[in-house]
Amino acid sequence: MDLASVRVDDASRPVRVAVDAMGGDHAPLEVVVGALTFARQSPADQVILVGDEGAIHACADGPLPSNVVIERSGSVIGMDEAPAVALRTKKDASIVVAMDLVKRGRADAVLTAGHTGAGMAAAVLRLGRLPGVDRPALAVQLITSKGPMVFLDIGANPDSTPENLFQYAHMGSLFAERVAGVASPTVALLSLGEEKGKGDARVQRATELLDASTLRFIGNVEGKDLVHHPADVVVCDAMLGNVTMKFFEGLSSFIFDLFRAEFRKAPRGPLAYALLKPGIERIRATFDYEKLGGSPLLGVRGTVLITHGRSKRRFIAYGVAVAAAAARARIPEHIAEAFAPGGPGRLPDAPGDPAAGGDQAPADERAPAGDPA
Amino acid sequence: MDLASVRVDDASRPVRVAVDAMGGDHAPLEVVVGALTFARQSPADQVILVGDEGAIHACADGPLPSNVVIERSGSVIGMDEAPAVALRTKKDASIVVAMDLVKRGRADAVLTAGHTGAGMAAAVLRLGRLPGVDRPALAVQLITSKGPMVFLDIGANPDSTPENLFQYAHMGSLFAERVAGVASPTVALLSLGEEKGKGDARVQRATELLDASTLRFIGNVEGKDLVHHPADVVVCDAMLGNVTMKFFEGLSSFIFDLFRAEFRKAPRGPLAYALLKPGIERIRATFDYEKLGGSPLLGVRGTVLITHGRSKRRFIAYGVAVAAAAARARIPEHIAEAFAPGGPGRLPDAPGDPAAGGDQAPADERAPAGDPA
Repeated sequence: MDLASVRVDDASRPVRVAVDAMGGDHAPLEVVVGALTFARQSPADQVILVGDEGAIHACADGPLPSNVVIERSGSVIGMDEAPAVALRTKKDASIVVAMDLVKRGRADAVLTAGHTGAGMAAAVLRLGRLPGVDRPALAVQLITSKGPMVFLDIGANPDSTPENLFQYAHMGSLFAERVAGVASPTVALLSLGEEKGKGDARVQRATELLDASTLRFIGNVEGKDLVHHPADVVVCDAMLGNVTMKFFEGLSSFIFDLFRAEFRKAPRGPLAYALLKPGIERIRATFDYEKLGGSPLLGVRGTVLITHGRSKRRFIAYGVAVAAAAARARIPEHIAEAFAPGGPGRLPDAPGDPAAGGDQAPADERAPAGDPA
Repeated sequence: MDLASVRVDDASRPVRVAVDAMGGDHAPLEVVVGALTFARQSPADQVILVGDEGAIHACADGPLPSNVVIERSGSVIGMDEAPAVALRTKKDASIVVAMDLVKRGRADAVLTAGHTGAGMAAAVLRLGRLPGVDRPALAVQLITSKGPMVFLDIGANPDSTPENLFQYAHMGSLFAERVAGVASPTVALLSLGEEKGKGDARVQRATELLDASTLRFIGNVEGKDLVHHPADVVVCDAMLGNVTMKFFEGLSSFIFDLFRAEFRKAPRGPLAYALLKPGIERIRATFDYEKLGGSPLLGVRGTVLITHGRSKRRFIAYGVAVAAAAARARIPEHIAEAFAPGGPGRLPDAPGDPAAGGDQAPADERAPAGDPA
């Protein structure tokens, strides 16, 4: 496996990634093996496997590489548990212990393939939001005909305000610039028409905010244009982002499954497949979302990457690599800087702005509920 | 072309369909030829071609069938005109004349491939909403692995209320039952999680309304499940519906184009294609949206079908057939009945309810702005 495609902004800075070894449908085996793959390929970085020591050793084929350590945790949060309840009752869960490593400065990033809602909630509760950030956003790199595109919010916190969208745009832009390596990224709002400002009241107001911002805001993009990389960063409310991202998964799988079935069904299908193999490999490479590593949670005090619950070793290895790249790129620090008073991402009356009377925790300070992935 | 797949509820009742011969990217030629195809296959029905008489005759290859008449119109509304302005200044436009035929009882349905926003606006302004309907909705039959599924609202009127979603659910259910032929259709809300009631404030309140309704409401469906026909009717706000429907178009075209390109590029691609042809034909049939005819506008005083601006003759012929089927099924009458005081679709304080103090035209009585297709 070649992890070289993951961009590294400051290759000279080693980072420590805490990996939730117990989270995910295929944990701990696939998570541990994937994390070890990364560790062997990036000997300067450290991987901290968080979980049951015996289980982790059982998954590792032989002694652990010297840049891998184990941090013990107790319970595990299951994929079908209510995150808020689970986090209250399972304070020694692997995801909580992993977040606390970042909080105490013992790790630079967390990767989890566990329950997305629990991961988001643990990040918000244990690390907290960055000052000036009203609401963290879960981003993804959506596959397009011209390569991946930063797309957010795909999380489980709907009812965002225009101000939230404005902040998502800034955070997404920083991620695109510093992790995806896009110079001066363009930003657009996802809506139901191409004309700038067309959309619901939220989009209309967000358009005004973004027009007045320092971002390279280009207006609206429509659903049909998403696959052609209409902007470097596309921003929307979680309802739209979550449905779109999951519809991408559902629809693309459906079509590929249809082709797969027809290749199997046809009497000379294996021959047809052989004749087309290089092309099919190219299509497969275009849709290789595993290389993108998962979803960065932007706006919390730490680098957190939430990857798919069904991730196997290859996906996990890329996930750790992207988490390491995001930590190396110091995304939280850059967001904090942009959102500091006077910064380009700071709204005049943002919560947490001393000028506006101190840090009033908004309602969504509470744990996000449920599982967006 | 076989139009037999379009269900006809009351085959004994002839209907008259006014076809906007001047609307669409390929008007009048493709529209006229497609409408004539329908007319020849359904001799008991009447087709009224609305447009420029000379242009229509020039498109028809020989004399018109006896069940086709021409209704003259003057100007045409272009695909890039602002609908509200165009409708004010072009009162003799083909789409306006076509709507007026329904209004004056001279036609039972309208089909247009012209500017979607103009079509919706003309319908609302010339025909008006049905009593009890707060806001008309544009529906579509979305392709799934188990056949088409009624999906709404895909129009250009966002900022719907929970009450709007409740009404869309009733209208979509009537369409599914009486045109798509689904007995006792199930209804779901599109949202970001499977748990019933999970979603934004609008979905939460709509869940309460639908739980208390007479509909077969099954709760939420997620984006990834849409392709597997999770319900007979899926309801959402226009932002979500419009983006999802257009993303369907964009993503499926992107994937099919990739395969097409690889078949062309491969040295033995033509052979591979020949070996797989029956399977590719099956996939093509699964994604044959032309057979679904277009988008019914539900909630206005008349049967209105808005089809794709890029429609050619085959798509138009199916569009006229679906418009005829919807007219035969008396969808507006059934909606009016459901939304009458005491009806299952009637909300206690619906505008237009005499008990609530008369018909207060809501803000969206104004022409819908822009083009959702």
